[in-house]
This record gives sequence, structure tokens and C-alpha cells, in this order.
Amino acid sequence: MKKNFLLTPGPTPLPPEICEALSRPIIHHRTPQFQAILKEAEEGLKAVFQTKNDVFILTSSGTGAMEAAVVNLLSWGDKALVIQGGKFGERWTELCEAYGIKPLVLNVEWGKALDPDVLKGYLNKEKAIKVVFSTLCETSTGVTFDIKAISQVVGETDSVLVVDAISGLGAVDLCMDDWGVDVVVCGSQKGLMLPPGLGFIAVSKKAWQLVEESKCPKYYFDLKEAKKAIDKTDTPFTPAIGLIVALNEALKIMRAEGLENIFKRHKKLAEATRAAMIALGLELFSPTAASDAVTAAKVPHGIDGEKLVKLMRDEYGVTIAGGQGEMKGKLVRIAHMGYISEFDIILGISCLEKALKKMGYNFELGAGVRAAQEVLLK
Amino acid sequence: MKKNFLLTPGPTPLPPEICEALSRPIIHHRTPQFQAILKEAEEGLKAVFQTKNDVFILTSSGTGAMEAAVVNLLSWGDKALVIQGGKFGERWTELCEAYGIKPLVLNVEWGKALDPDVLKGYLNKEKAIKVVFSTLCETSTGVTFDIKAISQVVGETDSVLVVDAISGLGAVDLCMDDWGVDVVVCGSQKGLMLPPGLGFIAVSKKAWQLVEESKCPKYYFDLKEAKKAIDKTDTPFTPAIGLIVALNEALKIMRAEGLENIFKRHKKLAEATRAAMIALGLELFSPTAASDAVTAAKVPHGIDGEKLVKLMRDEYGVTIAGGQGEMKGKLVRIAHMGYISEFDIILGISCLEKALKKMGYNFELGAGVRAAQEVLLK
Repeated sequence: MKKNFLLTPGPTPLPPEICEALSRPIIHHRTPQFQAILKEAEEGLKAVFQTKNDVFILTSSGTGAMEAAVVNLLSWGDKALVIQGGKFGERWTELCEAYGIKPLVLNVEWGKALDPDVLKGYLNKEKAIKVVFSTLCETSTGVTFDIKAISQVVGETDSVLVVDAISGLGAVDLCMDDWGVDVVVCGSQKGLMLPPGLGFIAVSKKAWQLVEESKCPKYYFDLKEAKKAIDKTDTPFTPAIGLIVALNEALKIMRAEGLENIFKRHKKLAEATRAAMIALGLELFSPTAASDAVTAAKVPHGIDGEKLVKLMRDEYGVTIAGGQGEMKGKLVRIAHMGYISEFDIILGISCLEKALKKMGYNFELGAGVRAAQEVLLK
Repeated sequence: MKKNFLLTPGPTPLPPEICEALSRPIIHHRTPQFQAILKEAEEGLKAVFQTKNDVFILTSSGTGAMEAAVVNLLSWGDKALVIQGGKFGERWTELCEAYGIKPLVLNVEWGKALDPDVLKGYLNKEKAIKVVFSTLCETSTGVTFDIKAISQVVGETDSVLVVDAISGLGAVDLCMDDWGVDVVVCGSQKGLMLPPGLGFIAVSKKAWQLVEESKCPKYYFDLKEAKKAIDKTDTPFTPAIGLIVALNEALKIMRAEGLENIFKRHKKLAEATRAAMIALGLELFSPTAASDAVTAAKVPHGIDGEKLVKLMRDEYGVTIAGGQGEMKGKLVRIAHMGYISEFDIILGISCLEKALKKMGYNFELGAGVRAAQEVLLK
């Protein structure tokens, strides 16, 4: 018998209510029956995005929603700024380049936060930046960027701020309207506790002016068509019906818990996980800007991170993530995002301890679990 | 108690094995566990596409896969020909226009087949047509185009043939390799018996040369990136994991029945449905090129087609489709595609009869059901 547990930063585990919803008979999308579900889901999304703007549901992964942001806001030859501090920041750069948009890159050292003053200086120096692209939680490094501060800086300019909140929305706070964030992009398989397959994009009035002007070619991700459809509680193309039915259930679960409580839970789980890592002698990759959605820690000297992840997953049944890009083989990343309880974290740390012992790392067995327990008991 | 039945040309009903697969705990996509499923699904797709070419799985609806065909094969200013005989033919035209490709349109009267000689004449006259876009089953009219004949005509030129087989693949025969079709596009929610949310595209060697040359901007639907990924049994972005797990189960069901038997079943169900329509005095919209995937018939004079569909769905629980585009309110479309048995057809016709009686149409009750039974007994 091998029982499997999932502690990765996307996909995240599915609540049983979601599994049940996914298994229901399919219904047709051009019916009042589906429209009622779509309408409720769209309202629920607004609550999670903390916005009064439309939240468009796209049948794509989160990257599709990122592409929607680029091709709907910009035109060939436009200038954009990418705040790039990890693999997913790099994706904005790649997307801009693919569509002939000139991405200026504000590099942030992997694992570090962005100093808003640096951004301010950059925006004062470089004019005509139409869009600033940022990331809420950089999954590859376990950093949460200070979107509130970034939004304040960008808000003093004519630029529009676009935030990739694929990782993090519904796990850490992001007040789209109150903080003045113009565009928020999300995916289904992280804080929203769903399988991957849906992308989301919310667009402010200020940003919609860019949508009107944009000349990037587009069809499938054309937000003007999506807007025409959403005004009739419809979608431009056949949507991922089953996932939207499940989305509606996920949003009910989130409404019942309440956003404040959800953020508190994630914060506590993150603190417990970080305490465990430190107790085990593992260095946090981002001690100063650690995300409450996923914890990244450096693999101890002499231990092969890829082998460690493989041992935990293939032998012990606990799937965590390793390092990506330049950090490949050098990190463990344990997610505490979505449908994750304190005891999921305990079991994950316990499995990490077992694997580390088996691989010859020297530490006091149980130290990580106990450190997490102490935080969780508070 | 209202029990619901689905007889629409996408989505089509889900087999219980698929519902079960959709409800399973989610697994991570960058694992050998998922790779094994992905590999098996890709092999199964090749069997259904009747091809040795790669079949790329996209996280999108079928329209996303259509966009993938356009942006990967063509460049701004290129000339393409669209065989347009319904709403989904029009989609090729719209897609070309969105990307600055000049679509020449070969209009086919809605409900009619294409005369291959007309295509031949067109291709002889117009040179430099890089791509010919066609449709296997035009869902909006219930027509199946003779792709074998079309492919023969296109095969005599330098053009590449792209077929939208979203509606029809896995229901009616399409031998990609044997007939020399260059690109085949499909979606999950029709013959493949899945929820919507996956798009598929298979590309021949001849067509791949166009992929190498194409200058359309693209990122999410970039097939060169998809090719790099598929060679490592991977996907460029997080795929719709749950749908791919279910796809693999659907392909097992299809393998067990066998493509020949599947096509025979669809043919018989279509014949029964057409016989029922005629027995009820409803005129087939396409008597000469009727599809084995969906039957379209004209609503009797004096009956409001939209009200008829609404009555069947909202009062009696049987969802069929009405007319689209220029045929709005004028057609009923009953699908016999995917997970549909002969008794589903009987119940659908029975419900149609009940609704027609309630709406005052004069005919012999039971005539449609009996006509279908007679075909099905053969």
C-alpha cells in the first residue's frame, strides 16, 4: 500500500466536494442551467479577486491568461517593464518578446524582494512604459512580492500594473481595487483548489483603455469578445464546463471559510513550515520575503535535491517540488496553498525528515516536526 | 423528479468511467506517474487520428487548437482558402483575418456538400494558397464534408490541408495518414466523450515545413515549444491534468470498441434519427450530405424552434440543440455522437414528439420512434 500526498505549488490537492463536482454529468453551456452557475462563479471570483471589475474565465492554463494580458493591453513596438525575480517573471519577458513588445527587465535577485524605490527610480528614468508586469508569489523561489507597494509606485505614473497572481491568489492577500492593481491574472490549480485548466483575468477601467487601443493580433484570447459574452453571461467559445461547475463549488468553500481566515491559515502553515526548515538546519531561500503560499529551502550541502524529491515521491508517496531553472537540484519547495491543513504540513515535514535521514544528512529526528507543532499549537 | 438527458453536438454525455476518472485525486504533472498516462494517451490519440504524426494536447477548447493551426502554419500576408459552409467554417475565416492572413472564401451553401471539382477549379485558378481550411462535420448544419475527396484535390497542389475535425473525430471515419490530410484539429467534448477543455492538433511532415517558416506571433499555442516538450513526454505549460487522465480512460473505451465498430454505431444511430425525422414530416436540412455525428432537421412550419428546444430541455429534461447563425430558430439538431446508445436516440425522439404535440404540430404520435426502431432492429 502506498498512499499519496500532494504538497506541490500547483496542482494543489482537491477537496472531496470538488472531486464530486467534477464527476457530475456534464451539462450544455448554452442553457439557463449553466448560465446560473457561471454567473455565481463570476460573482464568487470577484470576491476572491477583491474587485468590482469583470473577471474573465478562460479555458487555458494560467499561462494562457498571461498571454491574454500581453496581447490585449499592448501593440507591436510598445515598451513594457518586467519585474523579473524567477522563472515566472521570465515568462512575462518571453511573452512580450513573442509579440514584438520591448521588455525592459528589472532584475531582482532570485529569492530577494523588490525595493519599491528601485522601481520608482526606474519608472522616473524610463518614460513611455505602458505596462509593468509583476508576480505575486514567485513559485520558483518562494518569494511574495509587495504588490501593495509596487502598485503605489506604478499608480503615480501612467503605466498599468499587471500582476501574475496565478500562485498566491486565494492564499495571500491581494486587494485588486483597494490597492489599485489594474490587471490580475490567475489559474485554477493553486489557491482555488481546482485541477489545472482554467485561467482568469480581471481588468480595471484604466487598463481597459489599453484593451481598446491594443493592436496585437488575437482571437482565442480576445478580451473584447470575452466582454461581449460576459455581458450576456456567456463565453465566446465552449468553456471547460466541468471545471467551471467545480470552480463554483470551490468558491462556496472559500466563502464559507472567509478570505481573512484563509489568509491566516496560510500564514500559520507557512510559519510552521519555515520553523521546521530552520530546526532541521535547512537555509530558507528567501528569509526576508518568504511567501505564505510555498516555502523554498536550500537542500543541505552534499544532498542531491532531485534525488531527495524523487525518494519522497516514488518511495514514500509524498510529492513536493524541487528547484527550477538556475536552482534545479538545489531547493526543496513545500507548498501550503489551497486545500492544505496543519496535519498535511506535519506529514510532509515528517517525510522530508525520513528522506534526509535515509540520504545521510545528520540532524535530530523529529526536530522539524516538533518546531512546526510548536507554531501550530500557538 | 426531472431526469436530464444530453443529446447535443458538444458537450456529449460522459461515460461513468470518465466521471470516475475526473473525480480522482489530482497528481503532479512533472512526475513519472503522469508521464506514463500522458504517453499512453498520446499513443491512443494517434490511433483515433489514424496517424503516425505527433498529436499535441493543448489546454484549450477546440477553437484554441484551430488558432494553433493558423498561427503555426502561416504568416502575416499569406493567402489561405477557407471552405466555408457553416458557422464553424466561418471561424477559420475569422481566425485568418485576426492574424492578417488573407482568407479567400469558397462558400458552400449551408446544408450542402462541396463539389470537389469546384475546389479543383478554384485551386487551379488561385495560386500561392498556402493552406486550405476545411471542416469534417459542420456542426451548425449537420453536414459531413468528403475529406477524402478534398484531400485528394489539395494533395495535387503545394497547399496544405487543415481539417477542423472537432465535431466528428471518433464518430465518423477520418484516415489522416491514408488520405493525406496534413493537419487535423480536434476537441475533447464530442466524439471523445470528455468534458470540454482539451484541444488536439496533429501535424504532418509536409505541414511541419510551414511551422518552421511561420512568422505569426505566438507563445501559448507555439507548436515548436510543444514539439520540444512532447519529445520528453512533457507539456510546455501546466496541462489540464484531470482531463488528460480522463482522456486516457476514454481512449481505452474506444480501443475496446474498435474504430470500425464505433463508426458503424454512429452510422446506424444517424440513419435511425434521420428516418424518425422523415416519419415525423420534418425535412432534413442536409439530405445529401447528412452527418453521422449530428442530424439537423427543419422545424415544421408554424413552430418556433427556440421554444421547442426550450420546452424539451426545461420541462422534459432532454437537451438538444437548435439552429445557429442564419438558421437560428429554424432547426432542431439531435446529436448521436460519443457515448450515445440506440435507446438514447429513442428517448430523444420520443421527447421531440411530445414537445411537437404540445406545440400543436399535427402528426401521428409514435411514428418517429417506430421509424427509428425499425432501422435499429435491422
